[in-house]
Amino acid sequence: MAKAVVLLSGGLDSATVLAIAQARGFDCYTLSFDYGQRHRAELAAARQISRRVRAVEHREMEIPIGAIGGSALTDETISVPDDGGDGIPVTYVPARNTVFLSLALAWAEVLGADAIFIGVNAVDYSGYPDCRPEFIEAFAALAALATKQGVEDGAVAIEAPLVSMTKADIIRAGTEAGVDYALTVSCYRADDAGRACGCCDACRFRRDGFEAAGLADPTRYQLGDSAS
Amino acid sequence: MAKAVVLLSGGLDSATVLAIAQARGFDCYTLSFDYGQRHRAELAAARQISRRVRAVEHREMEIPIGAIGGSALTDETISVPDDGGDGIPVTYVPARNTVFLSLALAWAEVLGADAIFIGVNAVDYSGYPDCRPEFIEAFAALAALATKQGVEDGAVAIEAPLVSMTKADIIRAGTEAGVDYALTVSCYRADDAGRACGCCDACRFRRDGFEAAGLADPTRYQLGDSAS
Repeated sequence: MAKAVVLLSGGLDSATVLAIAQARGFDCYTLSFDYGQRHRAELAAARQISRRVRAVEHREMEIPIGAIGGSALTDETISVPDDGGDGIPVTYVPARNTVFLSLALAWAEVLGADAIFIGVNAVDYSGYPDCRPEFIEAFAALAALATKQGVEDGAVAIEAPLVSMTKADIIRAGTEAGVDYALTVSCYRADDAGRACGCCDACRFRRDGFEAAGLADPTRYQLGDSAS
Repeated sequence: MAKAVVLLSGGLDSATVLAIAQARGFDCYTLSFDYGQRHRAELAAARQISRRVRAVEHREMEIPIGAIGGSALTDETISVPDDGGDGIPVTYVPARNTVFLSLALAWAEVLGADAIFIGVNAVDYSGYPDCRPEFIEAFAALAALATKQGVEDGAVAIEAPLVSMTKADIIRAGTEAGVDYALTVSCYRADDAGRACGCCDACRFRRDGFEAAGLADPTRYQLGDSAS
């Protein structure tokens, strides 16, 4: 069986990607990062999702990008706004996907994996530069040159199956593949129990996605009326 | 003053790069990684070098690539050979420079730095894929796309001034720039006091470099006769 490292944040997109990778026949090794994010409920969600779908192995790596600062997601002194506004929002975490993919690349090489899956999405996204197809292509080109595996046995594939899908498309595809979205946490301000604020960018994209897909939203909200 | 993040392992090459960056007028922010390497004396060397040359700030980041395994430098069950032999040697650490540069990129973005300096060298090197000019070029292309800084203000430069220099050239350049090589630790099997084994690839390249440069080798060896 071909092996894949799947970046699994515990959110809706990465849970869908994991289901897609499994449906394509990959033995999946899931990888989450503890980077000092304030929405730590997503780490518990990632563990639960990995167990539920019987990933071969789940790893949680601690990395110091939170200590570097520069983002509302890691710095308690910068608040998460309800609306990201124009341009790249303050929830952007400097070089986050580059760091995530680099560590996935290291693990993929040791495993002899054929692919790395990442749930970036350039349509219903928040304007992050490292969610665009050109970023993924540049990382794939780097990966082919960066490792012993790449030089000797051919490059690992960098798979971003959601990159051109709308949130509604993602939710439809995941629902067909059997994803239990009740387990996933997307909210930037989720409480420890994984309940969503209903107001941040991530919550809005998610709620609009379920609505556009015509599917029931299983998200648990902190306040019954905040999602209305 | 322009700012630069300088990857500083504590070895000969990175100490030289730091001197070059300072000579070019950069305010230098030095960055070392604790990745479970067995030659931990290099971390102490990096701290000492940063203090000596008055780097603006020195950071040591802990990263989990050691736990991933796959290298004699991080896995106690794989021994460091005296001679790397043909091909890519067992001292290769999976995706190490990709991970290092990614974290440097994150810090550079938060600092608003203009350049990242790295001491890779493709001449007197050990056959590592991530020490080649094509790897550096691919990372620079990635960095331009990966960050808010790259998209909004232009890409950070990835500077690898040693990439085409021989070890002797590096030692001559560093000596002119005032590097105190007695502070640096290159050996893969250095003891806690930073004394070198004299036999591993890294020791051989270093010793041959001083000889070819016609300069005295200030390296402290574990055994007086091992360097003869």
